[in-house]
Amino acid sequence: MLYLGIDLGGTNISTGIVDENGNILVKASTPTIKGRDAEDILDDMAELSKKLMNELNVTEKDIEAIGVGLPGMIDKKKGISIYANNLKFNNTNIVEEMQKRIDLPCYIENDANCAAIGENVCGVAYGNENLIYITIGTGLGAGIIINGKVFDGSFGGGGEAGHMVIVAEGEECTCGRKGCWEAYASASALRREGRIAAAKYPNSKIYDLVDGNIKLIDAKTVFDAADLGDEVAIEIIDMYIKYLAVGLVNLVNIFQPEAIIIGGGVCAQGDKLINPLKEILSKRVYGGQLKTKLCIATLGNDAGIVGAAMLGKINREEI
Amino acid sequence: MLYLGIDLGGTNISTGIVDENGNILVKASTPTIKGRDAEDILDDMAELSKKLMNELNVTEKDIEAIGVGLPGMIDKKKGISIYANNLKFNNTNIVEEMQKRIDLPCYIENDANCAAIGENVCGVAYGNENLIYITIGTGLGAGIIINGKVFDGSFGGGGEAGHMVIVAEGEECTCGRKGCWEAYASASALRREGRIAAAKYPNSKIYDLVDGNIKLIDAKTVFDAADLGDEVAIEIIDMYIKYLAVGLVNLVNIFQPEAIIIGGGVCAQGDKLINPLKEILSKRVYGGQLKTKLCIATLGNDAGIVGAAMLGKINREEI
Repeated sequence: MLYLGIDLGGTNISTGIVDENGNILVKASTPTIKGRDAEDILDDMAELSKKLMNELNVTEKDIEAIGVGLPGMIDKKKGISIYANNLKFNNTNIVEEMQKRIDLPCYIENDANCAAIGENVCGVAYGNENLIYITIGTGLGAGIIINGKVFDGSFGGGGEAGHMVIVAEGEECTCGRKGCWEAYASASALRREGRIAAAKYPNSKIYDLVDGNIKLIDAKTVFDAADLGDEVAIEIIDMYIKYLAVGLVNLVNIFQPEAIIIGGGVCAQGDKLINPLKEILSKRVYGGQLKTKLCIATLGNDAGIVGAAMLGKINREEI
Repeated sequence: MLYLGIDLGGTNISTGIVDENGNILVKASTPTIKGRDAEDILDDMAELSKKLMNELNVTEKDIEAIGVGLPGMIDKKKGISIYANNLKFNNTNIVEEMQKRIDLPCYIENDANCAAIGENVCGVAYGNENLIYITIGTGLGAGIIINGKVFDGSFGGGGEAGHMVIVAEGEECTCGRKGCWEAYASASALRREGRIAAAKYPNSKIYDLVDGNIKLIDAKTVFDAADLGDEVAIEIIDMYIKYLAVGLVNLVNIFQPEAIIIGGGVCAQGDKLINPLKEILSKRVYGGQLKTKLCIATLGNDAGIVGAAMLGKINREEI
């Protein structure tokens, strides 16, 4: 049985057809193009899906269901995208709209949850019962799987671990609180610190790497400067990892999950990120014994496609 | 069918016989007496249980199982108390030892989890699927119920929400980290702040209420002084509630539970505690809509007995 997965992001629409074990048989993507109406994006989602079916020489009859992963607030039961920061999908019934275009059962889910499902089905957290997927990018999102199922609370919208305050009265967060984990451990937070430091220390490699054009500094710039031995950058990275670890230890203490998986852009740093984190966590978790596996996501951007596709399988099994 | 519940605390051994709906039919308690050997305490637990059976005119045949709630680290599957701060129960097999004394199935569970079960079975969180019970006393513990079942992670010992850092590099915590929620929102934290303030401001009512014997100040003293209009005490209580709210908002954002129940000594403050907390939570939760019910535990100390007793019912249903 085949499943169609769509990972709708602010930048790209990524689509794939997946077998029941989560293997991607064919995939493609197209730019989302910010500011477009939901209708146009939905048209592209359907068109890309049909293109993939043609490529694989299958029809709707061969596909069990469509799953869509998307950012922002959703109502899974009603199939509605309530609010998405980077998309004009406000109160859009994704399920109804997709079914107008392709006559198949359709399910939606938060994108971080989809990535968690993907890594659980055929990635680094294969077979784990309890796991937390952390996606570090513009924001810091979490997908939580408990007893093998996505957990997002009694009213949906749970799993907002990025909006766990770790520094009361600290940095302003986009959510209105101060000191959220996201304000210290997202890629945006690292970028902010890199830009502040470059302005303050024009002799640093952070400044050099962008030829003094501070607006070009992103999270990777700071990691790159640290790799070159720049002391300012090393200090920022050390602080960044320290704050990232604070939130991770909190989650281990609360959830004692089998695995915490780190995805999103920052995870490209691999062992440079994971090794110091493991060292801190081993010392800091409650009881002093780190049993949780801490690792980098292995499916990369495919996790979203696989997890979205698997929504069809999960929902079929639950009925 | 009847169930026997034992709530083993650092101060008292509380025991009750409970019907299958969680109603306590008969109960009694005896002082734990710190420093005694586990054997002696286990003898008292069994003796008290037998006394209750006599009182109710029932025998072992009428009782389905015994449940024991206890603090500290436990291994539920093996029935072992691994480590308890205030008791000499290190690597004591509670289940085996109880069964030597009373020949009935026996189950153990963390005390905060027992209280969560109790409030869920017949208290303020009756019928809720997802709830968090917070017990505020010497420490700050949490019992988490997800999808109707106790959740304590893949390795046991989860739910340590008190050891969620909310002020990175803040107050020292007994767990070795700095800035844990427990170090700001436990009764001990409030007592600490009360004593510091009394030493600094001998004109304050906090100082008056203990006739200058600062060692007599506890959490209640600070609340009492605030009730009398003492400005120093009011400021401490405001800060205390602010920090308590920081952790509660974090938990709402992560769990979106149906209910958060506040138990332990501090909950005696009732609306004086709950009303300002609700006000802060309503403003601060992610998305700006507080759907979680925030309330004071209604079973008081009985929650532990009821929850422990219900372990037998829960385990029977799961087999």
